[in-house]
Amino acid sequence: MKIIVDGMGGDKGCQEVVKGCVDATKELGVDILIVGQEGKLREELAKYEYPHEKIELLNAEEIISNDEEPALAIRRKKNSSIVVGLNALSQDKGDGFISAGSTGAILAGGLFIVKRINNIERAAIATVYPTMKGISMLIDAGANVDCKPEYLLQFAIMGSIYCEKILGKESPRVGLVNIGTEEGKGNSLVKEAYNLLKETNLNFIGNIEARDIPNGIADVIVCDGFIGNIVLKLTEGMAISIFSKLKEDISKSSISKIGGLMLKPQLKSFVKLMDYREYGGAPLLGLKKPVVKAHGSSDSLAIKNAIKQVKNFVEKDVINLIEADINKNT
Amino acid sequence: MKIIVDGMGGDKGCQEVVKGCVDATKELGVDILIVGQEGKLREELAKYEYPHEKIELLNAEEIISNDEEPALAIRRKKNSSIVVGLNALSQDKGDGFISAGSTGAILAGGLFIVKRINNIERAAIATVYPTMKGISMLIDAGANVDCKPEYLLQFAIMGSIYCEKILGKESPRVGLVNIGTEEGKGNSLVKEAYNLLKETNLNFIGNIEARDIPNGIADVIVCDGFIGNIVLKLTEGMAISIFSKLKEDISKSSISKIGGLMLKPQLKSFVKLMDYREYGGAPLLGLKKPVVKAHGSSDSLAIKNAIKQVKNFVEKDVINLIEADINKNT
Repeated sequence: MKIIVDGMGGDKGCQEVVKGCVDATKELGVDILIVGQEGKLREELAKYEYPHEKIELLNAEEIISNDEEPALAIRRKKNSSIVVGLNALSQDKGDGFISAGSTGAILAGGLFIVKRINNIERAAIATVYPTMKGISMLIDAGANVDCKPEYLLQFAIMGSIYCEKILGKESPRVGLVNIGTEEGKGNSLVKEAYNLLKETNLNFIGNIEARDIPNGIADVIVCDGFIGNIVLKLTEGMAISIFSKLKEDISKSSISKIGGLMLKPQLKSFVKLMDYREYGGAPLLGLKKPVVKAHGSSDSLAIKNAIKQVKNFVEKDVINLIEADINKNT
Repeated sequence: MKIIVDGMGGDKGCQEVVKGCVDATKELGVDILIVGQEGKLREELAKYEYPHEKIELLNAEEIISNDEEPALAIRRKKNSSIVVGLNALSQDKGDGFISAGSTGAILAGGLFIVKRINNIERAAIATVYPTMKGISMLIDAGANVDCKPEYLLQFAIMGSIYCEKILGKESPRVGLVNIGTEEGKGNSLVKEAYNLLKETNLNFIGNIEARDIPNGIADVIVCDGFIGNIVLKLTEGMAISIFSKLKEDISKSSISKIGGLMLKPQLKSFVKLMDYREYGGAPLLGLKKPVVKAHGSSDSLAIKNAIKQVKNFVEKDVINLIEADINKNT
């Protein structure tokens, strides 16, 4: 199996990406095609010992930054690592693609170059959502801010398959984010989506309230990309705010400082729970090939975990399963 | 000044409501008209010493429960405490109304009986949002799940006035909940609302991300009622989940138990920060008279605080200010 990796994406530069690739060839046994500025990549690779036949380079001089308008950047920068990498994927030069670069550009490139699975109306970003009772998945994390009920149905189908095959949860509980649990609650979008979802063979547990999301009420959290973004960012914001307030309060007296020290392992395990690096990247579901967006600030561990995830994505044949299920349910 | 209080609303029965009213007459100097089952109310009142001329009763035998379809309940239960109370308000038998009963029924009754201010398109629920840096207000907290851009504009105007006059924040910073801070981000609803908001004389600080809400980035958090409900409930859910996980972790070893004890004051001050009772109730903005929904599980302290809030609402002439500003800005 060969994974195509964007060597230039991410805030930490190609050092971390290259190290993650080197570790992946050793630990995961995959072949890797790194796309990007060949000179720089070669310089980084020279620092490591690794099985040389397992890493190839593909030159791409341009870089798409996070500030660029995604669709425009994809059209203009034909020689960027994202465009060259996705073209290689679409020409079967590798089995999957990962990038820690601009989410918008990866999505736009995925849609233009790799293209959607037949009958999929919109591709969506799925992401791991750490709850107090293990991990859940949230779909859509922000690819589609204006949705139709049919999109939410397809997000649920794709998310359920991915959750079962990659996160290993049997018959994952699918919940629709709403303002109340009763049928008939919500805005017009979720009311119609509810009616579509209850006709499927998914393990649809109905509407879920935002209050219950952090407690792991559903394995697959379904919502439009606007809501998904709000849920993810508010979760992050609350965790950060609560911990920094607690830290500030703890530092106010010597007794509380000692108390804080005594609780350090507990507080640390909490921070680890929220650590994106543990969970790999966010798959773009609905495309014809496996594409995963790694976190922008990925270090080599996060890159290696994202490569492992794409490997799984390929091995478990998730794309064909999605295609078959979409045709059954729509 | 006379405040009309729904004696039968709330999960804790009329005991807490009556006690809150008695305390209010003593501490706030207001007159009160309690609406509900007269026999029960009289029985409760008999337990207290208070200035008798300051509390009147108005009989209403029926009660609207939280499970009833709000609009239907308002039409059918003409002799319910909510309907009788709102009729009394609309007939100038008092200056404002509070209830800890069904939010939907208070809203439906407010719209049917008290009616909207001229040129207000939708009434909204505003609520206090406790942040790490003091309190903000969120509008709409759930009254309108399908919104037009103009509604969001009006929510912002109403929220800004209420925040300035009742929470005492000068020139409150108004933020629009969105998935990014840049202009042009978001779904079609918020994009258009942004354009309307930037033309007003509000202190509009632009789009705000959900991540920054708990950190007090805006004084008035503007969003549709669907998003508002998600933000409020997720905030609550995160706080509850983090604290119960922390509690669970703390109880696992004797060292961490001692650490937990040493941090008790810090943890307590946190819980107090999130305590609804400190903040009174949620005003329904856009109606012709002051109407406030108190929390369903209000105790006498929360009821007294809600009464104080309505008193303020009346004294600061918020309704006339809203009417004047809406006509200026729309």
